[in-house]
Amino acid sequence: MSKINEWQKEREKLNSTILAKEHLGIKRFFRLDTAAYEDGALDAKTKEMLGLACSTVLRCDDCITYHIIQGAELGISTDEFMEIMNVALVVGGSITIPHIRRAVERWDEIQKDK
Amino acid sequence: MSKINEWQKEREKLNSTILAKEHLGIKRFFRLDTAAYEDGALDAKTKEMLGLACSTVLRCDDCITYHIIQGAELGISTDEFMEIMNVALVVGGSITIPHIRRAVERWDEIQKDK
Amino acid sequence: MSKINEWQKEREKLNSTILAKEHLGIKRFFRLDTAAYEDGALDAKTKEMLGLACSTVLRCDDCITYHIIQGAELGISTDEFMEIMNVALVVGGSITIPHIRRAVERWDEIQKDK
Amino acid sequence: MSKINEWQKEREKLNSTILAKEHLGIKRFFRLDTAAYEDGALDAKTKEMLGLACSTVLRCDDCITYHIIQGAELGISTDEFMEIMNVALVVGGSITIPHIRRAVERWDEIQKDK
Amino acid sequence: MSKINEWQKEREKLNSTILAKEHLGIKRFFRLDTAAYEDGALDAKTKEMLGLACSTVLRCDDCITYHIIQGAELGISTDEFMEIMNVALVVGGSITIPHIRRAVERWDEIQKDK
Amino acid sequence: MSKINEWQKEREKLNSTILAKEHLGIKRFFRLDTAAYEDGALDAKTKEMLGLACSTVLRCDDCITYHIIQGAELGISTDEFMEIMNVALVVGGSITIPHIRRAVERWDEIQKDK
Repeated sequence: MSKINEWQKEREKLNSTILAKEHLGIKRFFRLDTAAYEDGALDAKTKEMLGLACSTVLRCDDCITYHIIQGAELGISTDEFMEIMNVALVVGGSITIPHIRRAVERWDEIQKDK
Repeated sequence: MSKINEWQKEREKLNSTILAKEHLGIKRFFRLDTAAYEDGALDAKTKEMLGLACSTVLRCDDCITYHIIQGAELGISTDEFMEIMNVALVVGGSITIPHIRRAVERWDEIQKDK
Repeated sequence: MSKINEWQKEREKLNSTILAKEHLGIKRFFRLDTAAYEDGALDAKTKEMLGLACSTVLRCDDCITYHIIQGAELGISTDEFMEIMNVALVVGGSITIPHIRRAVERWDEIQKDK
Repeated sequence: MSKINEWQKEREKLNSTILAKEHLGIKRFFRLDTAAYEDGALDAKTKEMLGLACSTVLRCDDCITYHIIQGAELGISTDEFMEIMNVALVVGGSITIPHIRRAVERWDEIQKDK
Repeated sequence: MSKINEWQKEREKLNSTILAKEHLGIKRFFRLDTAAYEDGALDAKTKEMLGLACSTVLRCDDCITYHIIQGAELGISTDEFMEIMNVALVVGGSITIPHIRRAVERWDEIQKDK
Repeated sequence: MSKINEWQKEREKLNSTILAKEHLGIKRFFRLDTAAYEDGALDAKTKEMLGLACSTVLRCDDCITYHIIQGAELGISTDEFMEIMNVALVVGGSITIPHIRRAVERWDEIQKDK
């Protein structure tokens, strides 16, 4: 099983642990979060791009990985991916570089898994 | 002259003040910043959406205003704008709400100025 | 009308402008936000304290003002308020001081308005 | 030895390394930090809740773990813990979710260790 | 009276308001904050440069203004100031630009006041 | 091979992966980033101190490690290093402590490697 798959399994397990606590507000937030990336006035692919850019400037590796997986499935190309990284780098500065390093590595892993 | 126009004039004046200091690194950064939003593997409109979402989660009113002006010129619709605000709100949380309030107000001003 | 009242009126007006856009996700987020501070396993007063501390370390003046108003109504004392500021100052560092300055000023205004 | 205990031992070791450098400002900051969570106008349990909420919105896993350990000792219940996570999630947005996942996992570990 | 002087008077007034609350932790933090910029293993001028760079990447206008005033008094030159802005811009990204705009404007005001 | 060396090799490998994508904007940003720390109106050592302080308040372990390595080579002393940590701690608050713990540990490793 690839590193990405392991990461996904761990993520699912911990999400289940949170939801099993049955906190109504948290459950509703999780649903809002899912809904935010569904087709609407903007299509799902564009929304995943937004999520990926935001995750990069906010420097959250797990969030970046999640949006990379979703974005790759929705057809973001490598050139488009690098453009998103570039906007995030310019907006967020060199402090984002370690996250961009890991993002590009994971992107390449996903392309090989295809 | 509208509030948006005043804001743009002030922005231009201060940018000139910075560039007049003739710091090579800063001048190059300003050029990189401009280039990041030009048509490429992603078109300019999508890049402005990314810039707007990033500015909102990073909570910078001036950056939000700038990308609103650019985005409106490139044809972002009000429905698309609200979708970007929604992604930013879910990613960045309620702490972004005061910025979203002012962003929606400025968006409406720009629509009236058209 | 006091500065605090003016601030509240402006806030209400802009919230209405956002909600009038009828974005389902944003409307649901606003409801979740309200619900997060209602009595539950923790009482409303404690939750307002949490909201105030979080707003201070995240350095959002509008959010601080909102939680100060709510917290004062729910009976937070001046000594308790200063303790919350102290925790936020230690966690968030001197970069929070300008926000704490304005927070203490607004706190005193609210006490006088009572 | 549990993961939490290992984490605590590592933390103690590194704190000793810092303090052995004998920087007066840093030593005083460490004392201020400890004092901020002692009983005062607010009791220690409430202060730990504030520290936990702040650590979550600022997205620091080590700080979250520390306040979870302290908070569990001071009698925070699982329902109260989930309420703190909920406030932090609403304030800080989905970018806090990976930290909340790990926080809930560690919370459960501590409950089993009891 | 110049804008900078007004800003300083307001800052002093609000600091007095905070200190008048007599919270021991906050008073001690204020002393630690002052001490952090005094001559030591690094001289005061270098420490003000560090404070200015940190304030810029953390995007706090009041903190930037404070360190600009202190730094100008300790002999930071305009070329050195622009270098600090450049490091902050590269580290923190374009999101710092609105703060750098205002920082350069205030720097020029202070040079004229001399 | 020491932990620091391994870290450097991994960093170099991933930087090559990014640069191999041949995105012009990203390549230019990397050059600007390198140039920002070269001797100029401020010497390289002072600029590394600024980079280290900024990395600490922005809480990026990889960036801290990088500037520690560069700074140690340029002759920052342990006392100077601790002063930089102290300024960052006061500005950025206790949330920076886990990063300072790891920074001091890596600093000591580098001193032993010399």
